[in-house]
Amino acid sequence: MSKVEECKIPNATAKRIPLYYRYLKMLEESKVERIKSKEFSQLIQVPSATIRRDFSHFGELGRSGYGYDVSYLIQVFSHILNTQVEKKIALVGAGNLGKALVKNNFRRNDNLTIVAAFDSDSELVGTKINNIVIQDMKDLTKIVEKEGITTAIATVPSQHSQAAVDQMVEAGITAILNFAPGRVKVPDNVKIQYIDLTTELQTLIYFDENFTSNKQFNFANQ
Amino acid sequence: MSKVEECKIPNATAKRIPLYYRYLKMLEESKVERIKSKEFSQLIQVPSATIRRDFSHFGELGRSGYGYDVSYLIQVFSHILNTQVEKKIALVGAGNLGKALVKNNFRRNDNLTIVAAFDSDSELVGTKINNIVIQDMKDLTKIVEKEGITTAIATVPSQHSQAAVDQMVEAGITAILNFAPGRVKVPDNVKIQYIDLTTELQTLIYFDENFTSNKQFNFANQ
Repeated sequence: MSKVEECKIPNATAKRIPLYYRYLKMLEESKVERIKSKEFSQLIQVPSATIRRDFSHFGELGRSGYGYDVSYLIQVFSHILNTQVEKKIALVGAGNLGKALVKNNFRRNDNLTIVAAFDSDSELVGTKINNIVIQDMKDLTKIVEKEGITTAIATVPSQHSQAAVDQMVEAGITAILNFAPGRVKVPDNVKIQYIDLTTELQTLIYFDENFTSNKQFNFANQ
Repeated sequence: MSKVEECKIPNATAKRIPLYYRYLKMLEESKVERIKSKEFSQLIQVPSATIRRDFSHFGELGRSGYGYDVSYLIQVFSHILNTQVEKKIALVGAGNLGKALVKNNFRRNDNLTIVAAFDSDSELVGTKINNIVIQDMKDLTKIVEKEGITTAIATVPSQHSQAAVDQMVEAGITAILNFAPGRVKVPDNVKIQYIDLTTELQTLIYFDENFTSNKQFNFANQ
């Protein structure tokens, strides 16, 4: 499938592909060979009509009464997501959360790897998290260029978030997962996604206290 | 505002309230006293028409040409979110990520506090993270009841996620933020929200590699 064809996929569908891919991999691990859209819908909490419409963008992937072939779908989505290629990730901010992310290092995933960690605190620079040496922020550009890294996770405190993101952009990073919730400015070619645990938790508590019937509300799936 | 009135707020609006609240607090900290929907829209990346429609549910909060009064909005949303009341949170799973969350402990927020941490690993039980002693999972019900905790963060590995969630539900927890991405079964009265860092990262990389014009896509805001 060419890049041009992929770009015809609606944005809403594209957003769900990593989720589909992840669950199909779980099914494969559990030796499930085929699945109906209804069953898949229950598993991932996305309406089955949405799943069928999404899958229809990738050609004739399912047959009525038979369901979808798990390994074939994995092949298609793996190709789209380019999962054969290792994605090298830089971690910027080696505080508590940063250290935990490096230690866990997406170990259940073949292709996502934090390969370098950075901090501006001279007491942290040179220390190790597992086998990764924390590097000085001033060496960010050099190392990012050398390693060919384009993706970074930022766990820098809010008040330093914009400055750190500026340095990342300057170094050539084009995709940033930011744990500081305050919106930062980035050029148009840079994608940024925020993980805001406080807001997630406040939303959860708010719904728990005020809505009794709405069992599940996963923003990412809707 | 009574519970009944609050329940008339559309779900989509309700989901955005914690986000609005958070940014209004940031504005207040920066000594901003009023803000127009357009400016607020740029700040939080939600369309200004959406903001105006959402705010209209709470009465006449803005005046044309003047904008919205930041401290008044904070008062309204604070009341809706019930932020005057401290929300006690249990942390279940005291591995790397769990420890980091306890250490950070939502320190920028007045009302969210992890007050207890649990693990089933006997080597961890009895050790401390900051001033919080890690307790045995078998004491979960006792402590949750004693402390009146209804919210938990789960950082238990995927393969033990369902069992841990079952224990939490049994103990009386009704709101769970789960860092294990695999969907678990919970009763209808329990709210569960997933933080799936792998899928977030794969989505981010996918968009970075395939879409050049779509600068920002924050699921929670759309």
